[in-house]
Order: sequence, then C-alpha cells, then structure tokens
Amino acid sequence: MSAHAPSFTAADLAAQLGATLEGDSSVVLTAVADLETSVPGDVAVAGSEHYLKLVPKCRASALIVPEGVPVPEPHGTLLRVADVQKAFLAVCALYAPPPPELADGISPLASVSPDAVIGEGVSIGPFAVVEAGAVLGPGTRLYPQTYVGHYARLGADCLVYPFAAVRERCILGDRVILHCGAVVGADGFGYTVDAAGVRTKIPQTGIVELGDDVEIGANTTIDRARFGVTRVGKGSKIDNLVQIAHNCVLGEHVVLCAQSGMAGTTNVGSHVICAGQAGLAGHLKIGDWAIVGAQAGVTKDLPGAAAYFGSPAVPRLEFGKSLAHTASIPKLKAQLKSLSDRLAALEAQQK
Amino acid sequence: MSAHAPSFTAADLAAQLGATLEGDSSVVLTAVADLETSVPGDVAVAGSEHYLKLVPKCRASALIVPEGVPVPEPHGTLLRVADVQKAFLAVCALYAPPPPELADGISPLASVSPDAVIGEGVSIGPFAVVEAGAVLGPGTRLYPQTYVGHYARLGADCLVYPFAAVRERCILGDRVILHCGAVVGADGFGYTVDAAGVRTKIPQTGIVELGDDVEIGANTTIDRARFGVTRVGKGSKIDNLVQIAHNCVLGEHVVLCAQSGMAGTTNVGSHVICAGQAGLAGHLKIGDWAIVGAQAGVTKDLPGAAAYFGSPAVPRLEFGKSLAHTASIPKLKAQLKSLSDRLAALEAQQK
Amino acid sequence: MSAHAPSFTAADLAAQLGATLEGDSSVVLTAVADLETSVPGDVAVAGSEHYLKLVPKCRASALIVPEGVPVPEPHGTLLRVADVQKAFLAVCALYAPPPPELADGISPLASVSPDAVIGEGVSIGPFAVVEAGAVLGPGTRLYPQTYVGHYARLGADCLVYPFAAVRERCILGDRVILHCGAVVGADGFGYTVDAAGVRTKIPQTGIVELGDDVEIGANTTIDRARFGVTRVGKGSKIDNLVQIAHNCVLGEHVVLCAQSGMAGTTNVGSHVICAGQAGLAGHLKIGDWAIVGAQAGVTKDLPGAAAYFGSPAVPRLEFGKSLAHTASIPKLKAQLKSLSDRLAALEAQQK
Repeated sequence: MSAHAPSFTAADLAAQLGATLEGDSSVVLTAVADLETSVPGDVAVAGSEHYLKLVPKCRASALIVPEGVPVPEPHGTLLRVADVQKAFLAVCALYAPPPPELADGISPLASVSPDAVIGEGVSIGPFAVVEAGAVLGPGTRLYPQTYVGHYARLGADCLVYPFAAVRERCILGDRVILHCGAVVGADGFGYTVDAAGVRTKIPQTGIVELGDDVEIGANTTIDRARFGVTRVGKGSKIDNLVQIAHNCVLGEHVVLCAQSGMAGTTNVGSHVICAGQAGLAGHLKIGDWAIVGAQAGVTKDLPGAAAYFGSPAVPRLEFGKSLAHTASIPKLKAQLKSLSDRLAALEAQQK
Repeated sequence: MSAHAPSFTAADLAAQLGATLEGDSSVVLTAVADLETSVPGDVAVAGSEHYLKLVPKCRASALIVPEGVPVPEPHGTLLRVADVQKAFLAVCALYAPPPPELADGISPLASVSPDAVIGEGVSIGPFAVVEAGAVLGPGTRLYPQTYVGHYARLGADCLVYPFAAVRERCILGDRVILHCGAVVGADGFGYTVDAAGVRTKIPQTGIVELGDDVEIGANTTIDRARFGVTRVGKGSKIDNLVQIAHNCVLGEHVVLCAQSGMAGTTNVGSHVICAGQAGLAGHLKIGDWAIVGAQAGVTKDLPGAAAYFGSPAVPRLEFGKSLAHTASIPKLKAQLKSLSDRLAALEAQQK
Repeated sequence: MSAHAPSFTAADLAAQLGATLEGDSSVVLTAVADLETSVPGDVAVAGSEHYLKLVPKCRASALIVPEGVPVPEPHGTLLRVADVQKAFLAVCALYAPPPPELADGISPLASVSPDAVIGEGVSIGPFAVVEAGAVLGPGTRLYPQTYVGHYARLGADCLVYPFAAVRERCILGDRVILHCGAVVGADGFGYTVDAAGVRTKIPQTGIVELGDDVEIGANTTIDRARFGVTRVGKGSKIDNLVQIAHNCVLGEHVVLCAQSGMAGTTNVGSHVICAGQAGLAGHLKIGDWAIVGAQAGVTKDLPGAAAYFGSPAVPRLEFGKSLAHTASIPKLKAQLKSLSDRLAALEAQQK
C-alpha cells in the first residue's frame, strides 16, 4: 500500500475505459480529482451541463465527458464515454489504493469462544471478542477490537470495523458492513413509570435483524426490540450517528442520512429517504418512496411517493407556500395601511 | 441460551399471571408479540380502548385484557387481569431468553491495575482496562473491551457494555448501566480565544457524577466539568446519542430521548422530559416536570410543569396558535382582497 | 493522584497570581468553584458586571476580581488582578489534579505492527492496535483500546483516547486530540443508484487530514473523501457527536458545537462557528467568520462575517423580523376586523 503510485497515460485510460480519445494521448495521469480542485496530472469528470460549464477553469490534464456534447475551451485531453458514471467508478478503481488486507484466520490476540461457529475464510483481528454461540458466515472479516455477542449471527462476507458491537442474538445478513462504533442491538429505551415519576426498566428481550447488503455508518445506534425484531430491510444504507429505536421496521433500500433518527415502533416503507437531521416520531407509517427533507420533523403517517419538509413536516409544495406566506406578511401590513388610509378618507367625506 | 424455546398453555399463563381465563385453556403459546404483528401461537396484550379496537384483526391465539371490559369479536383465548401493564411485564419475563452470563471474576485477558480496588462478585471481561486507583463496587460487571479510568469509582451492581468509557475520577452510583460506546467524562468544550480567533484549551479538571439507577444510552456523551461536577441525578434515563455538556446539572428521574442535547452549565430540574432531537442552550434553568417537545430549541429559562414546543420553544398552546396563525395567512389575503374591492366600489360611488 | 488535596492561603494565591489582596490573607482555600455553587473554602471568580452583581449571594471565601471595580458587599477576601481570565486559568491549574500518567513506551498488551514507525517518547496502552505502515510522531500518546489503521500518520504530541479510531492512510498534524469514540476516516456515504432504487457502494478511497492543534470530540465522525481529502484546518475545535461528511473542507480555527453536521463537499471558511445541532447542506460555501445559530439549517452559500439563524437559515436580523411578523398576525386579524366593520358602516350609509 505504501508504494501505491498509480500512473496511466491518457491512451492507457482510454483503452481501459473503452473511451474515444481527443487530444494528447501521451499525457501522464497520476490521480483522479474533482473538477474544481484538480491540478495538472489529474483526470477529472464532467458529466452534466453544470459541470461542463466549469471546464474552462479546470486545471486537470484530462477529462472524462459524455459522447457527443460540446466541451467549452480550454480543456485538456478528452475521454468520451457512453456512461460517464460507470467510467468514473472505473477510473476511481484504477487509481484507488487497495484496501487494507486483514490477516487470514483468527488472531492469537482475539478472544473467540470455543462455542462460536466460525465459517471458512473468516478473519478476526486482535482484541476482537466473539462470544459463545455466535456464528460468523464464510468470508466475514472482523477488524481488531470488534464485539460479537452471544448467539449473534453474521452472514457471509460481512465487514465489521473497530469498536462496532453486535449484541446478543442479533442477526446480520450477507455482505453487511458495520462502520467504527456502530452499535447493533443496545437495549430499547423502555420503562414503566409510577405515579411518583420513578421509572423501572422494561427488559428489552428482542433482537435486531439487518438484511443483506445493509451498511451501517459510524457511531450509529440501532436498538433491539422490546420483544420481537427491530428490522432493517436488505440493501438499506444508514449513514453516521443515526438513531433507530426499538421495534422500528424499515423496508428495503431505505436511505437514512447522518444524524437522522426515528422513535420506537415506526414503520418505514421501502426506498424511503431521510435527509440529514430529520426526525420521525414513534408509531408512524411512512409509505414507500417517501422523501423526508433535512431537519424535517414527521409527526403523522406519510403516504409515500412524495417529499416532505418542515417541522411539523408537510408536503413540499405546502412547505414552500408556508414560507412564502410568512414572507408576505410585510406586504399584507402595507396593504392594510393603504386600505385604512383610503377608508379614513371616505369616512371624512361622509361627515 | 441457544435452546431457549419457551412454551406455555393458556392455563399455565393464567396460573402464573393470576388471570381469569375465557376460552380454550389448552392452546399452546410460544411467544409474546404485539397486537398488530402477532401470529397464531402468540400471546398479545390489549390494554387500552385504542388497542381493544384492533382485536378483531389480531391473529394471536391469546390476549391479555383488563377485567370487566367488552372485547370485540373475533378473538382468541382471553386472560383477564387487574393490571395489564404488570401482567405484560410478567409475561415478557416468562418468554424472555436469559441475558448473557458473564464469566465470574477477572478475565486473564483483561488489564486491571494492581492499584485498583475490585469488589466481591465483580466480572471483568477480556480486553477491559481498569486503571490505577479505580474502584469497582460489588457485583459490578464490565463487559469485554470496556474502559475505567484512573481513580474512577463505580458503585455496586453496575453494568458496562463494550466500548463504554469512564474517564478518570468520574463517579457512578449503584446499578448504573452504560450502553455500548457511552462516554462519561470526556473533556468539556472550553477554550479561550484571542483577538485573532485562535483558541487555547481550558483544562477540564472536573468530573461527571451519575446517581443511582441512571442508565446511559449507546454512544451518548457526558462531558466532565471545567471544574466541579457535571451531574445526572438518580433514576435518570438517557437515551442514545445524547449530548450533555460540561457543568450541566440534571435532577432526579430526568428523561432525555435520543439525539437531544444541552449546552454547558444548564440546570435541569427533576422529572424533566426532553423528546428526541430537542436542544437546550447553555446557562438555562429548566423547572421540574417540564416537557420539551421533539426538535424543540430552548433558548430561555422554563418554569417547568408545562410542555414546550418549537424553536425557539414556547408553551404548547402558544406553539399551536402560532402554527394556526401562519396557516391562516391565505384567508387574511382573501379578506384583504374583498375589503379592497368593496372599498373601491364605494370610492367609485363618491366620484 | 489519589492524595491530591490542594490547599493554599489567600496570601499564597495572591503571590502566585500576582494579585493585590484585600481582606483576610490567611483564609485557607481548597477548591475553585463557580460563583453560584461555591461554599466556604472555595475561591471563585467574578470577572464581569453580570457576575459582580451575584457576589453578595456567593459563599466563596475568596474572589478573583478585576482591578479598580467596586465589588458589592458582603464578600470574602478579594484578589484583584489585571487579567481575570488569565488568573482564572492559572488558579484552575493550581487546583487541578494532574492528568493521568500513561506508561512510557509500548505496552506488552498492545498490538503494534513491526512495520509501523514509532517516534521517541511514544506511549501505547494495552489493547491498542497500530497497523502496518502507520507512523506515530514523537511524544504521541495512545490510550488503551485505540486504533491506528494501515499507513495512517499521526504527528508529534497527539493524544488519542480509548475507542478512538484513525482509519487507513488518514493524516493528523501535531498536537491533535481525539476524544473517546471519535472516528476519523470512515467511508463516505456514497452510492450509485439504479432505476429500481438499488444502491451500489462507491469505493471511498480518499483520506481525512486534520491540521495541527485540531481537537475532535467524543463520538464525532469525520468521513474520508470519495477521493482526495476531507480536510479540517489547523486550530479547529470540533465538539461531540458532530458529523463531517466526505470531501468537506474546513478552514482554520473553525468551531463546530455538539451534534452539528454537514453534508458532503461543503466548504467552510476559517473562523466559522456552528452552534449546537446546526446543519449545513452539501456542496455549499460558507464564508470566513460566519456564525450559524443553534439548530439552524443552511441551504445556500453564506457570505460570512455575519450570523445566520433559522431553518432555512437567514441573516440574524431577518430571522428576528420573521418571528416578529408571525407574532403580529393576531394584530393583523384585529385590524382587518376593524376595517371591515368601518367599511360595513359606510356601505350602510350609501344605501
């Protein structure tokens, strides 16, 4: 990894990407960069009208651009491709340093219960703990300093970063990624309260179940169910510092951006997107394909397939109108003043 | 734990709960579930009018219901009890898998200072660290991979989950629970700033003190005082991802829901509840029994014993009125237009 | 540390602080406390008019006050100084217990790659992990249970608390502090999405770079760049539970208070302050010296050198006017009613 110093000519890249080359094919490209911060020696991407406008200020030596569009001068060597996004991913992969290699097998510095079931090709780093009854599917990699609780089950090819924890009996599908500090299966926040306001903990005896291809961001917390299952459907992507309370059920391919959160027993449909710092109250039903804006506060069920903004959240159009209405109050005041003056004039005439 | 497969007949449950049975006493019940997601073989609970209405759609084989209320048909076997909440807790306990058992004593894989004081019946897991001068009360259990700093003191029967940290000199009462990733006693966020805007760290030499029966959620952070004590009173329950800044003082039986936070030196009375994502500015005084709504932003002292909403937060009634006023602006515009038209007509007559 | 029991007479303190003493020079002072909670035996500080007013209720035995200002009676011994803030820091330092001493060298219980480069005077605690290729500058201290990834580079005199993680290839300057659970360099939240709404992870191959004297709060997350660098400029101070998304670039001496966050590729100038729970959308440019209020939601570029409030955020003055406008709606309604009545009277006259 230390000696990673990728270098390709424009001709090399064109060949690898299946691109049509315009300009100097021998220019040497040593890094991918974004359009605005690139320097000579970089290859950058301009895939949309917005970015194409920025090309004349871009200092990259080569640009990946769509086929058949005009590119404003001046610009470096062009690599024209049919699918810019695909080419961008490919070029990123060409320049990316390889991810760290974790040692095969179980580190002698790990603590793995003899009663755990460890699949083939598993990697377990130093100071990781795997408790009794836990199951790790084949190819799953535990970084150092990770925790897998009693009878927790991880599928195949999962990746768990340092300081991530999976509490007892929780279940992860295949290819699940847990970033540093993610907590799966902490107790739900449930208490009984007596007349004096003193709370007694309700045992949280359920679990968390994460579907295949779920990714959980750093320091995100997903609480186990009071009983039953807190569920995140397959393909869902959860960003950092997100809170999912006990007994929530998320559909498939849900996206929760950083610092968003939902209270207990809320049911979120598939393909729902919550932007940053959005909050959902408990016991709600959010329909498929709903989009919840940044910092929105959802207090009622949402039918889905629409965007919602504000706190309390309302449909996007209504939110825009509400902002406009508030902004129009000074005008209303002026109109009132004018009417009052005209009325006073009439009243004076009547006397 | 793996072989945990609880099974009771309705007659068994009735006997254990002291319930009066109506219907098939021999039906076998293998799980507790909530009313809406239960399946045959489950026992569920319908304790309020709201839930009783849902009974006809419920597929559970048995239901715990209050004495003397009509239950809409169709329904499974009924278990009538005087106190539904108490019966619910009891039935949850009957079906719950036992919590993981931590090994007695100090793991040979832990790092415990010879200068630490370890009470009777303490459990310390692998890769836990207990620094010099730390004190662990009797019965306290440290999961693997926990950190107890120099001269920190934990009372009796505390429970500390993986990756939770108690920094130096902080004090925990009895039966305190720290969930995964909770941080007790990180430095407060305090700096001096010079005329050029350059900040110099102010040493944060105080501590955090948590009362008896306090529970701290996953990845929550409670900063140590600049000097003196950041205090959380007994019985208080703090959810996940909450921020309590330096020198805050919380009374007893306070509830802070997930992702709420408070800035430095704020004083919160007893029995205060902050809902999710609420924020309190610094140097405030919040009276006993105040309720702060979700996403509310408190900028002034609150007298307590009332509910506050919005950002900036106002009393609940005022918040509702404010929303209604904004919603009424279109009507105001229409009224203005009508007045203007009527006035124009009058003016025309005068000419 | 256990036997730490500082005790100074007022005369001692006056000598150490270069203060002019008024009152009993022999009074024994055993702690620093704040004005409102101090008890006899404490020394407190009253540096501003606001705090001087509180002096008569203060029970501290001695007070640090500015030269030449009247101090309301009754009060304890006075220590008059030219620079109260400086004296306060000095007196805090006199009473502060020493910070924990970390053992020199590499703990035999740590896991340090033979391919890591370890500077002079480095301390590495038990169960810390330093991966291959990592570089630790001289004097850097890693608490127990910390993680430094492959080819990560830490400068001199850094301080890393338990459960903080530096992922592969990230770069820290000198004197950087990472509090418990801070995550530097987790993957950015980036995916391609197909027509069916299924997301595919975009490799996040960039890094995070933190300048000299940066401090990162507990459980804060700073994501690595998609490619290139997520950057935090020197002297910046980041509080707890803050989210900085991939490819953000922060200037120097930035302050981000707890639970604030910013989406990807946002560019924040130097000396910017974000108050608690504030949020910045992605791809924005925030000018130098901008102040973003608590819970504000920034959706557009901000020119800087001004304060912004509300969600969506607007300049402070505008925000205040907007609140006042909304509050004035009841008055508008009353005016409308009055106009309508007057108009009706005129109309009646015309018939």
